[in-house]
Amino acid sequence: MDDGSEAPTRLRLDIAYDGSGFSGWGAQPALRTVQGVLESALATLFSRSGPSPRLVVAGRTDAGVHAIGQVAHVDLTAAQLATLAVHRGAPASTDPPSTLVRRMNGIAGLDSDVWVTAASVAPPGFDARFSAVWRRYQYRVADARGPRNPLERGRTLWYPAELDLDRMNAAALSLLGLHDWAAYCKPRAGATSIRTLQDYRWSRDPDGVLVAFVQADAFCHSMVRALVGATLAVGEGRLEVDALRVIRDRLVRSNDFKVAPAKGLTLVEVGYPPDDQLLARAEQTRAVRPALPGAPADP
Amino acid sequence: MDDGSEAPTRLRLDIAYDGSGFSGWGAQPALRTVQGVLESALATLFSRSGPSPRLVVAGRTDAGVHAIGQVAHVDLTAAQLATLAVHRGAPASTDPPSTLVRRMNGIAGLDSDVWVTAASVAPPGFDARFSAVWRRYQYRVADARGPRNPLERGRTLWYPAELDLDRMNAAALSLLGLHDWAAYCKPRAGATSIRTLQDYRWSRDPDGVLVAFVQADAFCHSMVRALVGATLAVGEGRLEVDALRVIRDRLVRSNDFKVAPAKGLTLVEVGYPPDDQLLARAEQTRAVRPALPGAPADP
Repeated sequence: MDDGSEAPTRLRLDIAYDGSGFSGWGAQPALRTVQGVLESALATLFSRSGPSPRLVVAGRTDAGVHAIGQVAHVDLTAAQLATLAVHRGAPASTDPPSTLVRRMNGIAGLDSDVWVTAASVAPPGFDARFSAVWRRYQYRVADARGPRNPLERGRTLWYPAELDLDRMNAAALSLLGLHDWAAYCKPRAGATSIRTLQDYRWSRDPDGVLVAFVQADAFCHSMVRALVGATLAVGEGRLEVDALRVIRDRLVRSNDFKVAPAKGLTLVEVGYPPDDQLLARAEQTRAVRPALPGAPADP
Repeated sequence: MDDGSEAPTRLRLDIAYDGSGFSGWGAQPALRTVQGVLESALATLFSRSGPSPRLVVAGRTDAGVHAIGQVAHVDLTAAQLATLAVHRGAPASTDPPSTLVRRMNGIAGLDSDVWVTAASVAPPGFDARFSAVWRRYQYRVADARGPRNPLERGRTLWYPAELDLDRMNAAALSLLGLHDWAAYCKPRAGATSIRTLQDYRWSRDPDGVLVAFVQADAFCHSMVRALVGATLAVGEGRLEVDALRVIRDRLVRSNDFKVAPAKGLTLVEVGYPPDDQLLARAEQTRAVRPALPGAPADP
């Protein structure tokens, strides 16, 4: 066995979770978090081969927010990788990333609220957080018009009034582009609130549930839930369609709407550039959004 | 106010529930059941106007089984109906069935695991149980091939092997028709096990989850879950495709497969004939399946 002094191997992990039982992604003492649970599994798996691996994530979701397409990376030493290539002393038949998936999910258990859906050796220059070019979220709202499905209540906001889809879409469309979103962000020291809102639209799914798709290069803290909360006020008629743009351009947080609850929000997908642009993208992002403590790219 | 001696008015209720927190539909002492929770709400609403209304249901689901299209009926006296037509002493603006929906759901609370999705005055001759001409269930299985979504774990069986969809469909198709299903039923005194399996097929949904649609005039107790359990054994290769038909025609319960867990099963829809055939259908069904205690039309 080597001593871990070789260059580590970076793995990309794709992760899904039901956020209901977690105090968000980021590890916190004495709280159950997604990062905490997954890093604890890694610590168990690699207890005899070097330091416990840490995860770096694309979207640090808040307490109660779900994910079906979360992405993280982990760096494993050669010794750690080697332990994935053997099973009960014999060489294992599958590749090490598949073995890692199986073992991490084995520790979680079949009915776990977090699941590693895939793992692969990351291409050179890949950084789950800084290489990402966009994050896409979904927000689900059952309003007074559609029947409510109790099976979906864990990831759907139940709204007591009827909402006007056309007004919501008009308001959503008016917001797109590169702007300072300070009015829709919880302020954080050292964090910029300038972001490009690439896509924001609402539709009614076949069950009558209103579903928002929101995509940006990155989101500042609580931005998706603030945008959704403001748009719900437009849909109910309590705010004018152009109020969301006016609020945004004032650059100060508004009391005209409530931030929408976490339970309706799901991180759906994280986008990355072609492999040959991963490193350049990461360097560019780091220059604009320095990795200060407490300055993650949060919804 | 009258004394309830007039003919009662029958209402049809459409009901959805997450079965995880219920010991099934049927009221049982000291256990939380769907019928128990809903009848308790009715008792609260009508505490000052006659006897507590009872519910008669189309499909008496087992513990842990979900529903999005359950149907029940309730008979209200003229005095009870009258209390739905007033609000704080003044005539209410909406019709009594809508008021009943709003009040029952108000008692349940927005995040309830059971929800009345609609109510209407039932057409003459309507009986939620005996007028029904078919029940349709869905069963969801995530096998080893597709990624697992923890947000769906409450209504999806997570199966540790890969399943062969074509084999499962061949087996399912071979079962259709009017047969004695004793081999797939938990026996109940006085209950027939002769049923018509009208539809049974499997498909993979866009998320890669295997979904069964099963429809029959009625199901005997645990029949859907037994059929699914046997078909999973075929999908995994532990039983031959024609084994399910052979087992059925032996008319005795088999140890060759396990009854599938309740959590994957959802009652999707109940079918009724045109209004002018409701009474004839109810009389015909009663003659074949007498309403003995303990002989409900269960999955």
